[in-house]
Amino acid sequence: MDRTDIECALRLADAAGSAIRPLFRGDWSHEQKKDRTFVTEADRAAEAAMRSIIEKQFPSDGIVGEEYGLRNEGAGRQWVLDPIDGTTSFIAGRPIFGTLIALLQDGWPVLGVIDQPILNERWVGVIGEGTTFNGKPVRCSPCGELSQAVLATTTPHQFSGDDVDAFMGVAKAVAERKIIYGGDCYNYALCASGHVDLVVEANLQLYDYAALVPIVEGAGGTMSDWQGHPLDAGSDGRVIALGDPARLEDVLEAMSGVDLDDGHHHDHDHRHDHGH
Amino acid sequence: MDRTDIECALRLADAAGSAIRPLFRGDWSHEQKKDRTFVTEADRAAEAAMRSIIEKQFPSDGIVGEEYGLRNEGAGRQWVLDPIDGTTSFIAGRPIFGTLIALLQDGWPVLGVIDQPILNERWVGVIGEGTTFNGKPVRCSPCGELSQAVLATTTPHQFSGDDVDAFMGVAKAVAERKIIYGGDCYNYALCASGHVDLVVEANLQLYDYAALVPIVEGAGGTMSDWQGHPLDAGSDGRVIALGDPARLEDVLEAMSGVDLDDGHHHDHDHRHDHGH
Repeated sequence: MDRTDIECALRLADAAGSAIRPLFRGDWSHEQKKDRTFVTEADRAAEAAMRSIIEKQFPSDGIVGEEYGLRNEGAGRQWVLDPIDGTTSFIAGRPIFGTLIALLQDGWPVLGVIDQPILNERWVGVIGEGTTFNGKPVRCSPCGELSQAVLATTTPHQFSGDDVDAFMGVAKAVAERKIIYGGDCYNYALCASGHVDLVVEANLQLYDYAALVPIVEGAGGTMSDWQGHPLDAGSDGRVIALGDPARLEDVLEAMSGVDLDDGHHHDHDHRHDHGH
Repeated sequence: MDRTDIECALRLADAAGSAIRPLFRGDWSHEQKKDRTFVTEADRAAEAAMRSIIEKQFPSDGIVGEEYGLRNEGAGRQWVLDPIDGTTSFIAGRPIFGTLIALLQDGWPVLGVIDQPILNERWVGVIGEGTTFNGKPVRCSPCGELSQAVLATTTPHQFSGDDVDAFMGVAKAVAERKIIYGGDCYNYALCASGHVDLVVEANLQLYDYAALVPIVEGAGGTMSDWQGHPLDAGSDGRVIALGDPARLEDVLEAMSGVDLDDGHHHDHDHRHDHGH
């Protein structure tokens, strides 16, 4: 990955924004056409614009897109695209959805962009180079105790079965007034900027989380699955983003319902297996 | 209420915005001082600025403020102020919190402002005059069926006891992908602008909901408590905002778990008692 890739990613974000902006809070929302037709239209237009740029500049690269599927599936370099992450937010007129762009090298996210085209806010994370917000470096915040953390998650409906208990374990470990719902990718962006300490989610697709990893980790945070393993193309869609990596054990303990300080034990063999 | 009152409300919003803007995404968020000290500071500075304007211009008017309490409690005209509605959103760096300003006449909200000082978005609702967004008239959207509605609510934690079942009744009546969490007052503003169809909340204080009523109703929607009664200073904090008043019966039925079309009966004597 080099400067050309970063420049390409920025052009992709520009192209997606141009396709999305005219449809935000459009007249369609008054026409009882909230059947996602117009969101799908914005989604498709944005993804098509991005794909055409990649196909021209890097014809042998792979593409994983939410709307148009796979191209060059076996390629070592894969562009992962989600034109509108937070479609309900987009439909509801909230300017905190985002366009997600990631470059994967052999399955690992090495470059990520979260672009908010209405507010002209752009986070760019590059492995080895750090994370910027509108061109300026940002850092996650330290978090001395989990009880002080600001915890964000998009919707309680994403958790089912045992995942509910795991999430509620974390929710109980933080102050209730510091749990914030909604937000989608914007929560991870705000984690990189130091305003959100922790995001816990489930049922994410590769195109939902790939771009977030270089952004959060480039700002000094950590992202992992619910066992503390790093995220790659094969992860199960359960995701933790944490501004202060020193709190990862506390989060995993809260999720497993086990308090190690109380003398209980739990298999955390893989917990420190974080780094790629 | 006359033009002078509206102009005063706009000056209040300007003053609150000036006090709040410098603290949004401030350095405090990186200093492990997320103990609400800095939010309280922004809240207090904004409310103090607003109170001083009211006290000068309308010394005999009442004031109900979140931070500084009551003034002239028995007055027929009461200004109701919430400098930062959505403090968690403010802490987390989301630009969708709001300053709420309402004027109550004999307990009824007749003028409301929702101001988003970061995005420079302002909704103003005046009973008898309609609702504007940044100076332009806005209207709620029609909603032919409840199943098509976009439903917004701030957090599942606001519901307890039977309120959980009532909320879940509505949640089940709409499509899951169209339920959006977070948002606070911004959900009601987006309802007035036609992007959100329905907001259902509980445990609101007078200063949380008073400003919303003229805004939603001025845009053609309706607001009520969970029995369908209009909201005044004595309401119990359970609130429905609905862009299309024709869906109110459907919402109340969904909340009560009773489907009138199936021949079940329920006491809806007060349901049509809406109008003030």
